Amino acid sequence: MTFPKQIRNLIEAFERLPGVGGKTAARLTFYLLHVPDEEINRLGNAVLNLKKDIYYCSICKNISDKEVCEICSDPARDKGLICIVESPLDVFSLEATGKYKGLYHVLHGVIDPLHNMGPEELYIDSLMEHIADSGKRIEEIILALNPTMEGEATAMYLKNKIRNSNFEIRISRLGMGMPTGGDIQYADETTLQQALAGRRDYE
Amino acid sequence: MTFPKQIRNLIEAFERLPGVGGKTAARLTFYLLHVPDEEINRLGNAVLNLKKDIYYCSICKNISDKEVCEICSDPARDKGLICIVESPLDVFSLEATGKYKGLYHVLHGVIDPLHNMGPEELYIDSLMEHIADSGKRIEEIILALNPTMEGEATAMYLKNKIRNSNFEIRISRLGMGMPTGGDIQYADETTLQQALAGRRDYE
Repeated sequence: MTFPKQIRNLIEAFERLPGVGGKTAARLTFYLLHVPDEEINRLGNAVLNLKKDIYYCSICKNISDKEVCEICSDPARDKGLICIVESPLDVFSLEATGKYKGLYHVLHGVIDPLHNMGPEELYIDSLMEHIADSGKRIEEIILALNPTMEGEATAMYLKNKIRNSNFEIRISRLGMGMPTGGDIQYADETTLQQALAGRRDYE
Repeated sequence: MTFPKQIRNLIEAFERLPGVGGKTAARLTFYLLHVPDEEINRLGNAVLNLKKDIYYCSICKNISDKEVCEICSDPARDKGLICIVESPLDVFSLEATGKYKGLYHVLHGVIDPLHNMGPEELYIDSLMEHIADSGKRIEEIILALNPTMEGEATAMYLKNKIRNSNFEIRISRLGMGMPTGGDIQYADETTLQQALAGRRDYE
């Protein structure tokens, strides 16, 4: 027995999403078979309209519904500080802290040779333009890339690139160590090494 | 910072799916932002077309693209045997064994008072019609419901209903015990009790 074509189509489309296997795809599809039509239309249209009127901000490449995003166009933001992140979701997480008042630059990926992502696939040229256009206003660039192999490689690449471009800019990275609520017993060696190396005076 | 409306719409629509939380919904949405438009259209249209020309088989209520499904209309199937299941996915799993040659009847749910599912929400009337229409041809009904509280309650209800309707039909249930690849050490007490009670001669 095979499922009708419409059902197979949706199972296959769900399976193409990251982290969704065959069982989950079938479960989601059969769930949708039992919901009211409005629910189905809501999801289907939300997918189809996803990219409608969505732009990458012409300055920082964050997603936006305007040509220049609300962060880049906010006069209260500190234009001397750029935080470089991998994805717009990282911007969202950092904004949720309420502690960062500078600008961002979204690379939309990291250098990852195994997945054919080289520096030219990332928004690095526009970052260098952003820095050049700002003249001497930029004081610090925070490399807020994930502490993974690919993130480290990308951070290294960017550090060299910015250094070689003769801008006098402080380049920093996010602090590393134990996450809040973490358990020393279960922390991996690298994290503990970073936590020891990054220890601070207890005030 | 908030995401543009189109992005929030899709995150919210994904979040309404069972087992999909906020983080997963955002991850899927941002994944789709980076795929080619054909991929997006494929998923969106598959959702919108899901229920188009999909029927419940007029006999067994399994999903089908015809009025009578391919199993009910297959002359090679044993019409004397009906296997009662909760969902079309169960039909698919049982068919995958290649060992069952009878018919099915899909209830589309189980009795579950906590979620407002009573017997009248299930396809039980059509099951009784199916049995009555078949006259004396039906020899056995297999209650293949999940071994959960709700599945047990539904099996009990159906057993009484079929017994009270004065049909001379054998009513059976699926065997219970250790699943293949299971670990006795980690099996729960009820499963082990069932495995002991259902032990068979080693031939």
